[in-house]
Amino acid sequence: MSNAPILLTPGPLTTSLRTRQAMLVDWGSWDNDFNQLTASVCEQLLAIIDGSVSHHCVPLQGSGTFAVEAAIGTLVPRNGKVLVLINGAYGQRLAKICKVLGRTYSTFETAEDQPTTAADVDRLLAADPAVTHVALIHCETSTGILNPLAEIAQVIKRHGKRLIIDAMSSFGALPIDAREVPFDALIAASGKCLEGVPGMGFVFAEKTALAAAEGNAHSLAMDLHDQHAYMAKTGQWRFTPPTHVVAALHEALQQYNEEGGLPARHQRYADNCKALLDGMAALGLRSFLPADIQAPIIVTFHAPNDARYQFKDFYERVKAKGFILYPGKLTQVETFRVGCIGVVGPEGMQAAVNAVAEVLREMEVLDI
Amino acid sequence: MSNAPILLTPGPLTTSLRTRQAMLVDWGSWDNDFNQLTASVCEQLLAIIDGSVSHHCVPLQGSGTFAVEAAIGTLVPRNGKVLVLINGAYGQRLAKICKVLGRTYSTFETAEDQPTTAADVDRLLAADPAVTHVALIHCETSTGILNPLAEIAQVIKRHGKRLIIDAMSSFGALPIDAREVPFDALIAASGKCLEGVPGMGFVFAEKTALAAAEGNAHSLAMDLHDQHAYMAKTGQWRFTPPTHVVAALHEALQQYNEEGGLPARHQRYADNCKALLDGMAALGLRSFLPADIQAPIIVTFHAPNDARYQFKDFYERVKAKGFILYPGKLTQVETFRVGCIGVVGPEGMQAAVNAVAEVLREMEVLDI
Ligand SMILES: Cc1ncc(COP(=O)(O)O)c(C=O)c1O
Ligand SMILES: Cc1ncc(COP(=O)(O)O)c(C=O)c1O
Repeated sequence: MSNAPILLTPGPLTTSLRTRQAMLVDWGSWDNDFNQLTASVCEQLLAIIDGSVSHHCVPLQGSGTFAVEAAIGTLVPRNGKVLVLINGAYGQRLAKICKVLGRTYSTFETAEDQPTTAADVDRLLAADPAVTHVALIHCETSTGILNPLAEIAQVIKRHGKRLIIDAMSSFGALPIDAREVPFDALIAASGKCLEGVPGMGFVFAEKTALAAAEGNAHSLAMDLHDQHAYMAKTGQWRFTPPTHVVAALHEALQQYNEEGGLPARHQRYADNCKALLDGMAALGLRSFLPADIQAPIIVTFHAPNDARYQFKDFYERVKAKGFILYPGKLTQVETFRVGCIGVVGPEGMQAAVNAVAEVLREMEVLDI
Repeated sequence: MSNAPILLTPGPLTTSLRTRQAMLVDWGSWDNDFNQLTASVCEQLLAIIDGSVSHHCVPLQGSGTFAVEAAIGTLVPRNGKVLVLINGAYGQRLAKICKVLGRTYSTFETAEDQPTTAADVDRLLAADPAVTHVALIHCETSTGILNPLAEIAQVIKRHGKRLIIDAMSSFGALPIDAREVPFDALIAASGKCLEGVPGMGFVFAEKTALAAAEGNAHSLAMDLHDQHAYMAKTGQWRFTPPTHVVAALHEALQQYNEEGGLPARHQRYADNCKALLDGMAALGLRSFLPADIQAPIIVTFHAPNDARYQFKDFYERVKAKGFILYPGKLTQVETFRVGCIGVVGPEGMQAAVNAVAEVLREMEVLDI
């Protein structure tokens, strides 16, 4: 088990043994002990954004995309219009969800190394009063770019519009304060910066917006209004919860708090990111994004120019040395990605850099 | 850990330590090792119904209900009409899904202790040619009643209609042969008779029906056509899979085969059911269903008449002795339920009966 490679991927990622061991118990999903586990998870999640006054935490079975779709389907009325801000694959997915759900939407797309700005949003909202909701990716994981959430949120509020945030890969590591950043929904999942295992998402839904959302959803399973109402009444999940995943997240949250909560998690990931960027730069590997818009979550690197570099071969060799990397997600440029998140510290990142260096030597990749 | 109570509930249920230990490893969801795990799971699942020629196995993140909704949403065209056969809460849920999805449907409801018959379906299909699909619960878990799937399937085929089967609580324990029982979709999940942990469902979708289903779905996350097409092309799940749940299911399937596959699993559950029924009868507790329509999955018992019986108290006391029971799901009659499935044998069921006997004595419940 200790020989399993470190996952330098943006979730699933490496979890602690303690978190995985929490899955060695079977829980009755109807039992009070399990209901308490769920309640504790929701409470701890809300505390991370200081959101218990303003928002409900609605957990949902499935991957993060299920929770994103559920948030849009539940919180955007059928006659709403969504402005989708895009600078990567997950932003594209938001638009696709609106399309499949039959919600009217428009898109605003910037280059993959170009954050959406508050000024963009101001202009777009002024130009189209039909827009009711804006949907934004906080950290666009397809590159690692950080969009300026706080500023954009203020502009949206000033226009009297509502904000839906996909914070899948940033939640828990980058600060978001619900008392200062107005939003109707913020979505994340168990298997990202909280260092749980994958299998559930959750949506922080603004209380009055959620209360008004009855009947909006296009789906039974993904109706967050129903999911919340049932849980508020019974303490139980509406449909069978992924009990072991919930138990693992509970254990992961304990460790999150023991580590020092968000500031400590943020610092460790920032240290990881720096160790990675410095180490790779020393090898001549160039990162795709400029430092000021790089979130300490995942880094995109340009692939070496050398014809002897093939991602598949590179990947397998680095894996044999104990590290799992991630393919690039850009269509125009050849890249690969390295995550900075999960149970790993700067020494681990340095070890990964060393593995990359050895592999490039083995492959005789010279032109980097 | 070994002190955790036995779950006599219809999933989540008690799993083996070996299955839970398979969750002690983190897997990269993009990695070839994990793709092989997924492929092996799908292959083993298809083998259980001898369905590899006729059907695809499409796994889906989330609970069983997500897979049921996905099957209906993907396989019933938007202008289709579903005849929903109901004799309990899960049949009601099928109708609710059709309603939320905006699929035209009609319902045929029998009493909770009354199986739907092939003659019923024959008559209903003759009377309404607009019906394109019939949806049926195989074992209706809200009582434990078994519906005559094979006969009903033949009638549906004779009428040239398509069948969608919710076999959530029967799959893996009750025989279903895809070469003899014609169906477009059969749905089950990881945490039931296969004795995995909850967190994923799967749909056996008839190959030509699935191929024709592009664009039907009301949802991105629950589009089985898309899910299958992506997996067929890449070997990967479209969105982050519940890696640990998949690994646990893989391990549970190995044990399923080692035990002797479906016949052995069926026999153990039948022995469990008999031990339970005999033991409870000896205490004077009456089962709700007659023996010939009782599936060896879960048994509904009438609650004792005695005013000193309160389910909550009874439940907590039996739990303290090591067994978790399940509340009744009938609206008219007071009942409780005891599952026969999971990692438990007839001795375990006898021990549960003994615990129930002691508790009734402690509670001074005399009028049973
Ligand atoms: C920003 C963002 N949104 C959505 C998702 C989708 O989550 P999932 O793969 O769990 O469905 C991811 C996954 O990495 C993500 O990074
Ligand atoms: C027959 C049947 N259908 C559907 C479901 C729903 O499954 P889930 O609770 O996993 O959503 C169940 C759950 O026990 C079931 O027994």
